Amino acid sequence: MATPSLLLSRRDLDFLLYDWLDTEHLVRRPRYAEHSRETFDAVLDLGEQLATHHFAPHNKKNDQEEPRFDGERVHTIPEVKEALEAFAKSDLLAAPMDEEFGGAQLPQVVATACFSFFQAANVGTSAYPFLTLGNARLLCAHGSREQVDTFVRPMLAGRFFGTMCLSEPQAGSSLADVATKAEARDDGTYRLTGSKMWISGGDHELAENIVHLVLARIPGGPPGVKGLSLFIVPKYLVNADGSLGERNDVVPAGLNHKMGYRGTTNALLNFGEGAHRPGGEAGAVGYLVGEPHRGLAYMFHMMNGARIGVGAGAMALGYTGYLKSLDYARERPQGRPLAAKDPSTPQVPIVEHTDVRRMLLAQKSYVEGALALLLYCSRLVDEQQTAESEEARARAGLLLDVLTPIAKSWPSQWCLEANSLAIQVHGGYGYTREYDVEQHYRDNRLNPIHEGTHGIQALDLLGRKAVMNGGAGLAALGEAIGETLERAREAGGEAATLGDALRAAWERATTVTAELWATGDPETALANASVYLEAVGHTVVAWIWLGQFLATGDGDDAFHQGKRQAARYFFRHELPRTGPQFDLLASLDLTTLETDPAWL
Amino acid sequence: MATPSLLLSRRDLDFLLYDWLDTEHLVRRPRYAEHSRETFDAVLDLGEQLATHHFAPHNKKNDQEEPRFDGERVHTIPEVKEALEAFAKSDLLAAPMDEEFGGAQLPQVVATACFSFFQAANVGTSAYPFLTLGNARLLCAHGSREQVDTFVRPMLAGRFFGTMCLSEPQAGSSLADVATKAEARDDGTYRLTGSKMWISGGDHELAENIVHLVLARIPGGPPGVKGLSLFIVPKYLVNADGSLGERNDVVPAGLNHKMGYRGTTNALLNFGEGAHRPGGEAGAVGYLVGEPHRGLAYMFHMMNGARIGVGAGAMALGYTGYLKSLDYARERPQGRPLAAKDPSTPQVPIVEHTDVRRMLLAQKSYVEGALALLLYCSRLVDEQQTAESEEARARAGLLLDVLTPIAKSWPSQWCLEANSLAIQVHGGYGYTREYDVEQHYRDNRLNPIHEGTHGIQALDLLGRKAVMNGGAGLAALGEAIGETLERAREAGGEAATLGDALRAAWERATTVTAELWATGDPETALANASVYLEAVGHTVVAWIWLGQFLATGDGDDAFHQGKRQAARYFFRHELPRTGPQFDLLASLDLTTLETDPAWL
Repeated sequence: MATPSLLLSRRDLDFLLYDWLDTEHLVRRPRYAEHSRETFDAVLDLGEQLATHHFAPHNKKNDQEEPRFDGERVHTIPEVKEALEAFAKSDLLAAPMDEEFGGAQLPQVVATACFSFFQAANVGTSAYPFLTLGNARLLCAHGSREQVDTFVRPMLAGRFFGTMCLSEPQAGSSLADVATKAEARDDGTYRLTGSKMWISGGDHELAENIVHLVLARIPGGPPGVKGLSLFIVPKYLVNADGSLGERNDVVPAGLNHKMGYRGTTNALLNFGEGAHRPGGEAGAVGYLVGEPHRGLAYMFHMMNGARIGVGAGAMALGYTGYLKSLDYARERPQGRPLAAKDPSTPQVPIVEHTDVRRMLLAQKSYVEGALALLLYCSRLVDEQQTAESEEARARAGLLLDVLTPIAKSWPSQWCLEANSLAIQVHGGYGYTREYDVEQHYRDNRLNPIHEGTHGIQALDLLGRKAVMNGGAGLAALGEAIGETLERAREAGGEAATLGDALRAAWERATTVTAELWATGDPETALANASVYLEAVGHTVVAWIWLGQFLATGDGDDAFHQGKRQAARYFFRHELPRTGPQFDLLASLDLTTLETDPAWL
Repeated sequence: MATPSLLLSRRDLDFLLYDWLDTEHLVRRPRYAEHSRETFDAVLDLGEQLATHHFAPHNKKNDQEEPRFDGERVHTIPEVKEALEAFAKSDLLAAPMDEEFGGAQLPQVVATACFSFFQAANVGTSAYPFLTLGNARLLCAHGSREQVDTFVRPMLAGRFFGTMCLSEPQAGSSLADVATKAEARDDGTYRLTGSKMWISGGDHELAENIVHLVLARIPGGPPGVKGLSLFIVPKYLVNADGSLGERNDVVPAGLNHKMGYRGTTNALLNFGEGAHRPGGEAGAVGYLVGEPHRGLAYMFHMMNGARIGVGAGAMALGYTGYLKSLDYARERPQGRPLAAKDPSTPQVPIVEHTDVRRMLLAQKSYVEGALALLLYCSRLVDEQQTAESEEARARAGLLLDVLTPIAKSWPSQWCLEANSLAIQVHGGYGYTREYDVEQHYRDNRLNPIHEGTHGIQALDLLGRKAVMNGGAGLAALGEAIGETLERAREAGGEAATLGDALRAAWERATTVTAELWATGDPETALANASVYLEAVGHTVVAWIWLGQFLATGDGDDAFHQGKRQAARYFFRHELPRTGPQFDLLASLDLTTLETDPAWL
């Protein structure tokens, strides 16, 4: 690379993948036998180069000249298609997939690291392939062989793109109210009618075809979420020989105009409203995936990955904002040290000001903490699939379940805060569109909303994950934390001191969880679920930071010093925030629950 | 009013002005003898109506079609000028000024309440008159009679607009490095050369003339801030008869393109670069205000008011966002109560969900807390000017000094957070430009930056205000808090309980202040100044909430219940945040100070 790309720190990735997560160990497993550290590094090199040269350059332009709908077609700037073609040629999309689907069986932890470069470079453009990957994975898991051949192979080759269509105008977070109807035809296909809202990548002309995965209701099924089935609804029907056939009756009614994330089209889609009549019949042609009424379970297969993907996107935006504000702080002269106010001396770079270092160190603790958390979760995906023992695979699955709402929401909250600090470091310049950071901040503000809002993640963590299987998820997390604490104790010194603080916080987390559910009343237990999510999230990230602290070993170069300092920052400035949060939860506070809406 | 304007709550204003701050008492003082509750109410009515009908309607348009510079002139949408003409006709701008300057001697506390409607309706357009008012006040205090006649009277009549020109490309927060030069001419005028950056309202064609107040350096003066003098530099020279004369040599080099606050032009201005030669000579004509080398002191006269104005703008954006998200939450059906998940029952308005109420109650506690704080500060301005005893006037001045950095920064931080919550309540809709709240969020993000960044306010509070005059400012604040605590103790019950929590927090604040300065080392004392600002800010707002709680008296309608519930929320969910902050400060933590820039 000619110049540092200011996307992610490759040094940090190397540290996390190899020194902390021992990713090289994976190549001993049959699935990854073709791999080596060299192939992993080559994938990271390729990702960084493509992201730098094809994705980053049009990030701002795609924000300023956002996709436009002329009533019939969606127009995007040409750079988007060029970037996606370069990406398709790289074969990176299929890389983590099984060989039987044309993949390279790349560990997910390496894929996540690689894909993060694209999210950091251009979250808008990179959403298209990553949505497609989630779609492809779902179909590989639950679709028929024919569906895989017809739709997945062209998606992995970059010819078709995919979406997920859940929300409707009257059913956003409340999927029980999804009303799109799917009526069976004698030939085994279905005809769909209804409207879907907030569909990312919902329409565009960037690919030959768009494969929508649509939740809909087969008449006569049970009400609520138990009556939802999943359908493939392609924009163009596909002939037996793989060529494109008729236009299907799925048409955009309009695009949403967003504060950020503008590069990704977001559409209201109408299914079967009569714009087209494939085969001369009314309704959009759909193909049932798996069995009827199991649609939501299949969709969750995609959604868990998508939630971790949202966390990764939030992290990547935070990370690149951090690097850019650090770069700015090292270059921009302004003011003088407190002890040297003589105006005839030269001004110093603003990184010399303590409060600027505070803003940089806070960002570092958020974005490197988030990256580590997301790589850890991705490593769990690999463990779940390939660990040597069944017990280890099951444990990875439990951990992944309980960490998913945190991996989605924590980066969405704190890497957004990182972007706010990146603006602040830039001062007035950061508030202008001449610099990148204001766009990162706008882009990042989506992340606490989509793929399940912050509040939904909180209910998922405290209302489901913390209690399901008799609390096995939290127990597995406690075990993992306990292993790190044991290593900290053995290391002694500062690590042991940090470990003591983490142990206390984790004990509070488990005690509070028990106290909340001891009420026996879900309304009381869940009244402050968001506070719980935030307190447990900070505790988990403190654990992640302790792990990184230990992994620095005896290293005493600037990189390792920085890691340890960021860990200290997190333990001194951040973890203590959880004290009042756990106190509030333990008090079974009902302030919000008891607020009469008329009082607001 | 036909429909509620969703700008500010008039009920809340009435409560704060009359039940809490006893504003009616002011009419007993000579300065306000012409006033009564009726004249105050009439001013508020007029403000709400003008803001609703002339400012709110083009708020979004002025964001989407931001001011444009064609290389020579600045173009704005016509609605801006129409709104400003309506505002000028109302005579509201001059209302708080002395009668001798054509004002109505309206108490500042009522003026702040009135002006907040405009900031809530359209912060971009309303910036022009409010910058002008600050400029006019400075000149009334420090300008000559002739300067007042020539420049202030047309400003108060809405014919001229004003700016303040401090920053330069190499001197943003570091005013010691201001380099613009002002050379004396024999006729007593000066000629200025240099560039000024970030000038709000710096150029436009909305007024006949623009009166720039410019910090510049007279050659031979002392270096640093002690060598700064203040000059009036009008865009057009003004003839003796008040008519406009020659074009002065102050020209825009370009406009900044911002993330938000787009309605207010923000210019880079060149002085004396040779585009014009007034009187055939080089340099922009400037008129010295007051004495040489006292410019910064004069400018601070304007800046303190401007800082409270920034806080008011932040509050107003937060307030209108709160009302809009509350309105949305009452209307939008989505999901069902935890205990009634039957999908065949109708969906409920989202205000029924506890986590949505949390987000609304948090917003309420931030925006009503901020409004109350700002009205309190404005009331102090009135006290400082008109209180019966010299002692009371001096005490008001001390309190105002110490509260100014908090009144600027606390709303800038927490009402921005309120806007983020307003987006979150709206879900995906809130992230689109179809709704108002995303713009409020973008607009509000400027407030922690301009008029002294968050970090600058922190140094001002802990490094100056907390220690100047032997700590008299904090002592005065402690006395004011003590009076409220005494009333809470007398009231007993819940008020006394809240009072105990506040007393403990305030005692920590004073102890920590002493501990920090006991180090004798400013670098150590100020290492976590931003944490101090935030902890003391939350403590101060808890005090403000206790005052409101007490002012509800026996009222038990929905309004008073809501006030008490928001106070409870603040004491239970917010004030405890200060615990770990004070702990960190008391530990004399040096994590950020000791961070080597190379480690980042």
